[in-house]
Amino acid sequence: MPPLMRRDEVTIIGAGPVGCVMARYLARAGHPVAVYERRPDPRVVTPEAGRSVALVLSARGWQSLRNVGLEEEVRAISRPLSGRAVHFRDGKMGFHRYGAEGQAIFCVSRPELNNLLVSALEKEPGVRLSFETRCDGLDSRTGELLLTSAKTNEKQAVPPARVLAADGAFSRVRQSWLRNDRFDYRQRYLAHGYKELLIPPNAEGVWAMDPGSTHVWPRGNHMLVAFPGEGRTFTATMIMPFEGPISFEQLDTQETVRDFFEAYYTDALELIPDLPHLFLSRKTWPLFSIQCAPWTREGVGLIGDAAHAVVPFFGQGMNAGFEDCEVLAGILAREPNWRRALKQYEEERRPNCDALTELSLRHFHELSSAVADPLFAVRKHLEQKVGRMFPDRFVPLYTRVAFTTLPYSEAMRVSEEQDALLAGLMTIPGIAEKWDSPEVEGAIRRAMESFRGTRHQEAAA
Amino acid sequence: MPPLMRRDEVTIIGAGPVGCVMARYLARAGHPVAVYERRPDPRVVTPEAGRSVALVLSARGWQSLRNVGLEEEVRAISRPLSGRAVHFRDGKMGFHRYGAEGQAIFCVSRPELNNLLVSALEKEPGVRLSFETRCDGLDSRTGELLLTSAKTNEKQAVPPARVLAADGAFSRVRQSWLRNDRFDYRQRYLAHGYKELLIPPNAEGVWAMDPGSTHVWPRGNHMLVAFPGEGRTFTATMIMPFEGPISFEQLDTQETVRDFFEAYYTDALELIPDLPHLFLSRKTWPLFSIQCAPWTREGVGLIGDAAHAVVPFFGQGMNAGFEDCEVLAGILAREPNWRRALKQYEEERRPNCDALTELSLRHFHELSSAVADPLFAVRKHLEQKVGRMFPDRFVPLYTRVAFTTLPYSEAMRVSEEQDALLAGLMTIPGIAEKWDSPEVEGAIRRAMESFRGTRHQEAAA
Repeated sequence: MPPLMRRDEVTIIGAGPVGCVMARYLARAGHPVAVYERRPDPRVVTPEAGRSVALVLSARGWQSLRNVGLEEEVRAISRPLSGRAVHFRDGKMGFHRYGAEGQAIFCVSRPELNNLLVSALEKEPGVRLSFETRCDGLDSRTGELLLTSAKTNEKQAVPPARVLAADGAFSRVRQSWLRNDRFDYRQRYLAHGYKELLIPPNAEGVWAMDPGSTHVWPRGNHMLVAFPGEGRTFTATMIMPFEGPISFEQLDTQETVRDFFEAYYTDALELIPDLPHLFLSRKTWPLFSIQCAPWTREGVGLIGDAAHAVVPFFGQGMNAGFEDCEVLAGILAREPNWRRALKQYEEERRPNCDALTELSLRHFHELSSAVADPLFAVRKHLEQKVGRMFPDRFVPLYTRVAFTTLPYSEAMRVSEEQDALLAGLMTIPGIAEKWDSPEVEGAIRRAMESFRGTRHQEAAA
Repeated sequence: MPPLMRRDEVTIIGAGPVGCVMARYLARAGHPVAVYERRPDPRVVTPEAGRSVALVLSARGWQSLRNVGLEEEVRAISRPLSGRAVHFRDGKMGFHRYGAEGQAIFCVSRPELNNLLVSALEKEPGVRLSFETRCDGLDSRTGELLLTSAKTNEKQAVPPARVLAADGAFSRVRQSWLRNDRFDYRQRYLAHGYKELLIPPNAEGVWAMDPGSTHVWPRGNHMLVAFPGEGRTFTATMIMPFEGPISFEQLDTQETVRDFFEAYYTDALELIPDLPHLFLSRKTWPLFSIQCAPWTREGVGLIGDAAHAVVPFFGQGMNAGFEDCEVLAGILAREPNWRRALKQYEEERRPNCDALTELSLRHFHELSSAVADPLFAVRKHLEQKVGRMFPDRFVPLYTRVAFTTLPYSEAMRVSEEQDALLAGLMTIPGIAEKWDSPEVEGAIRRAMESFRGTRHQEAAA
């Protein structure tokens, strides 16, 4: 068992990416930190196959990694993705750039990143890191944090003076609060689940597809997404409803799986050896959002997925968690009172993470169906035209979310204003035949006269 | 410990009003029923002081009580309330009828009603009733229902073949599902809480106010409501925010309580002897809504507050629970397959109870502020005028909710259509000075031409 806690020590539950980054922020600001992780040291165990391994890093994530001095190390194990390569059902391909020329999001393997962060944390002075120490939530009577060593079964109760729960979407700390009065809580599951498959290198030992893009097979109510991973493989994620006419439930034999992929994902069938067998052997995981309030009680605060688990379609889950750390560290630098700092952190972050929850749910629609829709292409063209005419004011939602640190709630508000403006312009008859006409450009200019936009600074992080 | 369950026996968790009524429906349809209640027999214990005791019965509740043969007995212990007596801050009074002449909702004491229902159930052939038997939820491995006797500590596991959880807003069965995959759940707390006070008979031993009305003191963000109860007393419920400038938190001394009531509830201060002391001694309870999905898994179903706890402002909580029983009993009469019956029950009831959740939240606004607002009076007058001109089509929301069995979701939809129509008419300049003019009546007739209304049958139950 670790020694008794030091005075003013901050206890962090969970040594996942968010717990590690938060610990590093605090340690570098001079706070002693104790981190407790339920699992064994990730560097000595093999991760479970078929569990989401591809993580996406964008502006918000990089800002935090930069500020804790880990940007370069993480860049070295990350891979830039400049846009989405769209695989249509007829075999044709399309490409949608994520941002401007030269902008990219980055893909990193969860185990690789976690190992790097844990190793870095271990070297950090002032940090005590304990694996295989389970958090059993908070004692309902004393409010103390309950810890149990998986090795010795020894129990420890930590005073809840300075605690951060970074224990993920199934946070035990949050579960303790759920039994309390006046805790707002919402968990929402999608009708869809996911299953992870693997696309190995081709016969020549090279990438089976372009490793500089995310690959998307939009098919309406179901889709396939692939990210490049370790050893020139792609992790391909099949997303579809659990039940219904086209669903995981229906695909329960090698024949039905093969027939299904032949009908909808012909090229993927060729890329994944023994696909039917792999498909049937992999577990299907659910997709859900979690929102709650408050995020803080007494000296305890929630951070990352423990406070706001989102569906993964916007690739923002970890970025939002890292931004939590940046915001809280910034507040602690100005506000020495721990409880007041936690309250300010919640005040600033909760509305933004609520916005991200909604944006992430909406983005599934864009990814799975709209990308393959002809009207979507017209609308996209119009959006780009307005963007070229007003580059500083009319910025696509994806750019604001992935390539700036504009607060999520503000990004959502402006995006809704932009959508309304585009919807108005889309009613111009035959717009797609006269993009550069004085009529269309005049209409755009008039529409932009009453456009509010954002007054926030939008420098890319 | 009770004997082993009989074949096809239905197990009901909870002998509150909903559990008792459901048991009676099932027993009368020939199903053997076992009912387990955590608390001791309510007839031998004193109920906790200050916990909500005034229940409201309206059309939906009476329909179920009639169909299980208990209408007359319950009428005998209920008290009709024909409308709201409004106590304004300046001492003036107003009166708003709930429905048409002769229509009333009924007020009944929770302990009295529960005792009556338990006594009736005890006499019902085919029903086994066990008190002091706690449900610990469902075994996560076997799915069995776990019961523990509080007296002997004996444990029992009931196969989950035919189980109804009527174990209230804090349902242990529902809590077991919360740990499962793919269970949608939402709990929302109001910023407001409530505290119950008592208005005794006056010095002459008679009712201190008219016992044929609900009494309401609307004061915007806080309010007092009183229902007549046993022994010519009124139960007065103070509803206000927990925290903030005017809140329970602020009223923490005899002086602040007295000053507050003198300022806002002068007449109530006179009616409640030793009000400051009573106010400070009574616990403040939270107000919350709970929604979840699904309501049924395997052979287990949720019913009443376990499935849909609502805030109490519409007086529909118990009525909705009793309507659950009516609907499920009706389905079971046509559909012998228990699991299919539960699924149909959820399909029919869940959208309606989701609508009631929203209607109940919105009704707080009407009760606490709008009733005292002069524009509200104009709008109410207009609503009544349109209602008199089109009595079969234009029916107030309160009437549809309390005096018909129109599904809640349909009542909400039509009410929103009516609100939009009234908002349009309210823009007629000076409407309050010319109610009966050809201009106003013509505008009403034109607006009603495109009014959809409801095609449902709306016979009062």
